[in-house]
Amino acid sequence: MERQFDEELKQLKEKLMQMASLAEESISLAVKSLKDRKEELARHVFKGEEAINLLDVEIDNLGLQLLALRQPMAVDLRFIYAAMRIAVELERIADLSVNITERVLDLLKVPLLKPLIDIPRMAEMAQKMVKDSIDAFINRDDKLARNVCERDDEVDDLNNQIFRELLTYMMQDPTTIKRAVDLILVARHLERIADHATNISEDVIYYVKGKTIKHHCETNTRSEKK
Amino acid sequence: MERQFDEELKQLKEKLMQMASLAEESISLAVKSLKDRKEELARHVFKGEEAINLLDVEIDNLGLQLLALRQPMAVDLRFIYAAMRIAVELERIADLSVNITERVLDLLKVPLLKPLIDIPRMAEMAQKMVKDSIDAFINRDDKLARNVCERDDEVDDLNNQIFRELLTYMMQDPTTIKRAVDLILVARHLERIADHATNISEDVIYYVKGKTIKHHCETNTRSEKK
Repeated sequence: MERQFDEELKQLKEKLMQMASLAEESISLAVKSLKDRKEELARHVFKGEEAINLLDVEIDNLGLQLLALRQPMAVDLRFIYAAMRIAVELERIADLSVNITERVLDLLKVPLLKPLIDIPRMAEMAQKMVKDSIDAFINRDDKLARNVCERDDEVDDLNNQIFRELLTYMMQDPTTIKRAVDLILVARHLERIADHATNISEDVIYYVKGKTIKHHCETNTRSEKK
Repeated sequence: MERQFDEELKQLKEKLMQMASLAEESISLAVKSLKDRKEELARHVFKGEEAINLLDVEIDNLGLQLLALRQPMAVDLRFIYAAMRIAVELERIADLSVNITERVLDLLKVPLLKPLIDIPRMAEMAQKMVKDSIDAFINRDDKLARNVCERDDEVDDLNNQIFRELLTYMMQDPTTIKRAVDLILVARHLERIADHATNISEDVIYYVKGKTIKHHCETNTRSEKK
């Protein structure tokens, strides 16, 4: 019985890792399709989202089944609950990658506004935050989780910088407006992906430490967010 | 013992209703401050968010305590889990109201771009969706929950319409760009609030029916979202 329960917990963990790796891939594909101007990469994001949605439902069902049948205590309960919450965040991340891809498909129809440097950098940062938040969960590493939370500010700053730069483009040349707004939205979606990685990290800290740091990890809720 | 458990479930429900009513108020205050050009209303949104964050932590703690100590079965388990998930959605809604308010504070520094009609309408729709999704939870009304999901498309359409209209303004007169982009972001935040109400409704259907409709309620994931 105990051994079977361990096996089920392992299954839950594996499904979550699989989901996380698909979510990371979706971010990187979405932005790579923009950077390399390859529409076929964008198409893969839609396929990936379907797989992620299936995993999300599987994790939810498995988690609830474990809560109901195993009636776990303390750390196991927190593990299951954290896994279920993290799945929700990963699913949102995949949705945001789809949103980015929708903007990319529009952007690929017109010439590039400017060489892209900051957006791919932002994408890398966001993707790394997702990866590290999941690693923190798997390794029960609350220090890494806290470090992810801290990086959220850098992503916000980069987003604000991109916003201001693109605003200047639009002011100078109105023919750039549609493209610039699309890029602003891409950056915003990336910034939200980083927010979700931060949420995951908060869940990890709760799981490891047994106490919530929600609404404390975020030191900059009052700062400018575009 | 049983009676005490019922009392705890009632407490959970009441906290959630209180949180929902604060979240609804935050949407309405944020947009009213824009429409009536009253900065002091915007300030209330920040206050409300703090109260909402506190309730979120309280609901989470109470829910986990109930899961651990009462080891609830079937419908009680689904109720507690749904309540905890709904609290997460409400907290995101409050965050988005804060994001709207940040744009509003910028918009109040400059003359109005145009009389606002669609954005207040969109806010009303989103707010009603939040209200109905919570009513559906309280009354175990899966029909109402489904109806909320269906309304999400209307909000998306309105968002796209607002986006296109503001794009036209920017093209015609570059001095409107900053204001137009701020309004586009306000509309986008409202559209995301409607998404969260849809998520709540999906949780309600799961709670009432015992099966997940996640990723099925959303019929238009592939449609344009700005």
